[in-house]
Amino acid sequence: MAADLDQLIKLMARLPGFGPRSARRAVLYLIKKKETALAPLISALSQVSAELTTCMQCGNVDIVDPCHICKDARRNDGTVCVVEDVDDLWALERSNSWRGQYHVLGGTLSALNGVGPDDLNIQPLVMRAQAGGIAEVVMAVGATLDGQTTAHYVAGQLAGMGINITALAHGVPVGGELDYLDEGTLTQALKARRPM
Amino acid sequence: MAADLDQLIKLMARLPGFGPRSARRAVLYLIKKKETALAPLISALSQVSAELTTCMQCGNVDIVDPCHICKDARRNDGTVCVVEDVDDLWALERSNSWRGQYHVLGGTLSALNGVGPDDLNIQPLVMRAQAGGIAEVVMAVGATLDGQTTAHYVAGQLAGMGINITALAHGVPVGGELDYLDEGTLTQALKARRPM
Repeated sequence: MAADLDQLIKLMARLPGFGPRSARRAVLYLIKKKETALAPLISALSQVSAELTTCMQCGNVDIVDPCHICKDARRNDGTVCVVEDVDDLWALERSNSWRGQYHVLGGTLSALNGVGPDDLNIQPLVMRAQAGGIAEVVMAVGATLDGQTTAHYVAGQLAGMGINITALAHGVPVGGELDYLDEGTLTQALKARRPM
Repeated sequence: MAADLDQLIKLMARLPGFGPRSARRAVLYLIKKKETALAPLISALSQVSAELTTCMQCGNVDIVDPCHICKDARRNDGTVCVVEDVDDLWALERSNSWRGQYHVLGGTLSALNGVGPDDLNIQPLVMRAQAGGIAEVVMAVGATLDGQTTAHYVAGQLAGMGINITALAHGVPVGGELDYLDEGTLTQALKARRPM
């Protein structure tokens, strides 16, 4: 195999969800469809690489700074949803259920991985809060140990500013069956039961 | 999400082994590691796209034509291994068990998909055989209906030239357990049993 192909397969194999075998299949697909798959992929990657920037206000990735969400006048600037990463923001946007603003932390605090408060996008959030105009901050982080530690730390930083700090509800996922759920989720779902 | 990102995710999702969700994860990984992952991937793809060509002799994909296998004087030009596609050639090369030449058909005959003999790289193989110097052709195609149909068709085209036409052995895969194997493989393995 040509050395360049080998190098390309190695790079593809590093993508999450890919291994050496699937990377070979993807590369073969690309070289067999040079005009219809390889060329468009190169141009899309180059365009994204050239244009992409991080929003200085919220940490979102976009082609404009401030990003199109921060600039959207129809959104409620008084509520900010704090997420771990850009993919969580994308997921919430797909759900079409949040019309406020976002703040992307860029990860979670992690003693194990040596991630401290200064490694995350926390200080800019505190500055946004100090600037005023924020009534509620929703902690939309993962229900993991690191996620919850991060949420508590961020909540502590925002304390005493008169901001209502909330968190996503725990419970049975829509479409989820009870006997597949862990005890923690069931306990939380029972505690938070509501009248029908 | 920016339109360019959306377009990139759509293109990635078309790769074999990828779907919309894994494409999003891969794109997020790439934009978070712009210098260490995105830039090298773009340059590797561009290089492959610019350099890659198909060997006019055997149908292999390489940066030179004739390919480095066809040009390799240490290989036995008197034996040709016929494979369906380039990934099969790569697999045989990784096994380090073939020191002859190759011929890549570019697929299999398929009535269902409307693939006829003229759509495959068969005529150049016949011309290679007519030119002389080939003692054996090994049909290394898949043990599928289309693969075997193709092998028989190609064998028919090479008949009467004094070429010894062989096929890969069927049997128990190395490391395979008998109770997971289908009856067809077991039948073939029993028929082809050999003295220990």
